[in-house]
Amino acid sequence: MSTPEVRRRPGGRSARVRAAVLDATLELLLAHGLEGLKVAEVADRAGVHETSIYRRWGNRENLLIDALLDASEQLRVPDTGNLRDDLTAYARDLAAFLATPVGHALERTLAVAGDDPDTQRARDRYWTSRSERSCRMVVRAVERGELPDTVDPRLVVEMLVSPVHFRVVLTREPVDDQMPVRLVDALLRGVAAR
Amino acid sequence: MSTPEVRRRPGGRSARVRAAVLDATLELLLAHGLEGLKVAEVADRAGVHETSIYRRWGNRENLLIDALLDASEQLRVPDTGNLRDDLTAYARDLAAFLATPVGHALERTLAVAGDDPDTQRARDRYWTSRSERSCRMVVRAVERGELPDTVDPRLVVEMLVSPVHFRVVLTREPVDDQMPVRLVDALLRGVAAR
Repeated sequence: MSTPEVRRRPGGRSARVRAAVLDATLELLLAHGLEGLKVAEVADRAGVHETSIYRRWGNRENLLIDALLDASEQLRVPDTGNLRDDLTAYARDLAAFLATPVGHALERTLAVAGDDPDTQRARDRYWTSRSERSCRMVVRAVERGELPDTVDPRLVVEMLVSPVHFRVVLTREPVDDQMPVRLVDALLRGVAAR
Repeated sequence: MSTPEVRRRPGGRSARVRAAVLDATLELLLAHGLEGLKVAEVADRAGVHETSIYRRWGNRENLLIDALLDASEQLRVPDTGNLRDDLTAYARDLAAFLATPVGHALERTLAVAGDDPDTQRARDRYWTSRSERSCRMVVRAVERGELPDTVDPRLVVEMLVSPVHFRVVLTREPVDDQMPVRLVDALLRGVAAR
């Protein structure tokens, strides 16, 4: 059992170092692009040793994903009290986030990232965190009786966000303002509904 | 008006050259990966001048997309007489295709491809062709009275294929055998159905 002060100081310094490194990563990523990002420059800008970065993050991709995960927390999960509004707002916010330089870099990083164990762990951590947060919209709707309790929250969220990611990463077709509404309508009522 | 013989010969040669170049591109892509593919080597293997390739395809990405588009025609659009079966089979075949080396290369190429006019045109051509072919499943279902005629075929297809692409490109979660069935069920009946 350490004293509060001892507990706070290493935690505080560690958190500050982490924030400085992640901020530096994001700034350099936006300035030089994905390929131009160098761990040595991140270390320089954050005022830490390059070896400390490798010790903590393992590799460049892992660091990148962590920085982008951190940035993606600006993507809020709405809680309007109504499932349709929650899902529509979330799809809209996601499209807007993915259109920003950070969101765009995030998608490209995730799409090209390899399959070595470190990167795989970072990627899994990213999607697990995103999925857990967004599934809350569905869980709350089940609690309110808006959805049957047999529904699979992950399937609902996957069907909601996939078409948005699909356009941003693959077809590059813009997500117009009506798309989230039509998507949520089809998702809730089914396309066979008359 | 040219004679049939004159028409046939340039067309035949042109088609043969095209096929040889696209085959060579695909073989080298699978052998050396996306980054290792060189237009000079493609020209060598296909027995044509490098300049002819640039004249016809404009750039390396365009050539790549064309080769992959050609290969993706092995992805057949089913016609079982029943929408649910068509969509389920198509989602399954798509997942299987994207798991092959060619399918995997296709996704990565499309995900990292830039936004210059040539590449944009090649990408648009690819997705327009894919979309037109797969929309036929939905159009036939409307004609059979399985779907209301107010349905948007492109939205249905987009909602069907996006979760499969999303897993392959972004989350890298495997598409298990049950996923296409659950996806199609949710898409047709809606997730709010009891």
